[in-house]
Amino acid sequence: MQRGKFITIDGVEGAGKSTQIDFICSYLAKKNINVVLTREPGGTKLGEKIRALLLSIDTQLMDNDTELLLIFAARNEHIKTKIIPALNRGDWVLSDRFTDASYAYQGGGRGLSIERIALLEQWVLQDFSPDVTLLLDVPVALGMLRIKSRSRKDRIELETNDFFNRVRDSYIKRSKQFPERIKLIDASQTLKETTQQIKVILQAL
Amino acid sequence: MQRGKFITIDGVEGAGKSTQIDFICSYLAKKNINVVLTREPGGTKLGEKIRALLLSIDTQLMDNDTELLLIFAARNEHIKTKIIPALNRGDWVLSDRFTDASYAYQGGGRGLSIERIALLEQWVLQDFSPDVTLLLDVPVALGMLRIKSRSRKDRIELETNDFFNRVRDSYIKRSKQFPERIKLIDASQTLKETTQQIKVILQAL
Repeated sequence: MQRGKFITIDGVEGAGKSTQIDFICSYLAKKNINVVLTREPGGTKLGEKIRALLLSIDTQLMDNDTELLLIFAARNEHIKTKIIPALNRGDWVLSDRFTDASYAYQGGGRGLSIERIALLEQWVLQDFSPDVTLLLDVPVALGMLRIKSRSRKDRIELETNDFFNRVRDSYIKRSKQFPERIKLIDASQTLKETTQQIKVILQAL
Repeated sequence: MQRGKFITIDGVEGAGKSTQIDFICSYLAKKNINVVLTREPGGTKLGEKIRALLLSIDTQLMDNDTELLLIFAARNEHIKTKIIPALNRGDWVLSDRFTDASYAYQGGGRGLSIERIALLEQWVLQDFSPDVTLLLDVPVALGMLRIKSRSRKDRIELETNDFFNRVRDSYIKRSKQFPERIKLIDASQTLKETTQQIKVILQAL
């Protein structure tokens, strides 16, 4: 059986990930591809419990290294117990956020050293990697405007504009570092135009 | 202000840690030393939530690497937000289990590679270390007999005798590797004899 493809979708708040995820799922379903939709942090029963710890506003003062270790604990469980078994069955996997988000949020946003993030990435992922990463890019101000209507913000969404600008810059820098895998998509266009760009990438897969 | 001392106490189930912890706390109090008693995994509000995930029998199938990452996440929070601030205030800290337990339980017990544990230890602890570790050693059968009366066993206590024999062997091996820091104490003697050995070590501190 042919191994499935592992697609990740990433980007700052308000980039339109949810809408494009709906499109991708329906596009692949029409091609008779089984797709497992999942997310990070989370994706497993244990991972969702870790996600709750990470996003709870009760734990606002968590040490930055603790946050990163928890994210990689959830990610390890996600890869080993959900993503790899699905790919081995021949299913495709679409994850809403993955390791690039750790470089962007914990590295760019919180200022953790890229080398220390890379050490944990190597420890957990070894040679595992997405086949393609769709990086939806929008200016932070536009993203914020789009999510303004979300009623309750979590611990990450409460961060400042400066934080999100550093996150966005890190994402863009990373896409330049891995241009083969990470497809930088201008998501400030209309939904239809963004979807069209994603369609072209999926066809190539 | 003089920095406090960091003491850890470790050993297999039923080695008598709790009784000796009571003795140490009261011994130090009589010397007018403020002692912060803590434990791993746990020790902080967040760490205790992680402990609950680790010990819950609902999560029996957790991947071994996930378990280790969660333990180190809790340990990082413990060191940064509780242990180091207490030592800097001049208090002494006594922790019921610490990093040696990861080598014994996850390394010896679960068979994780010592090199991979050492990588995470280095990532989290850097050059931080206990001043002294009291390693209470008893044959597994005797330890098991002592804890037989505990009514509800957690996810770790449900392991087999083989598992606990590997844990004990790893502890002993580690005490030979770090003989200056880790004091191997024969805890199969009477409580009074064990306490006497600990008293001599504390006096030297």
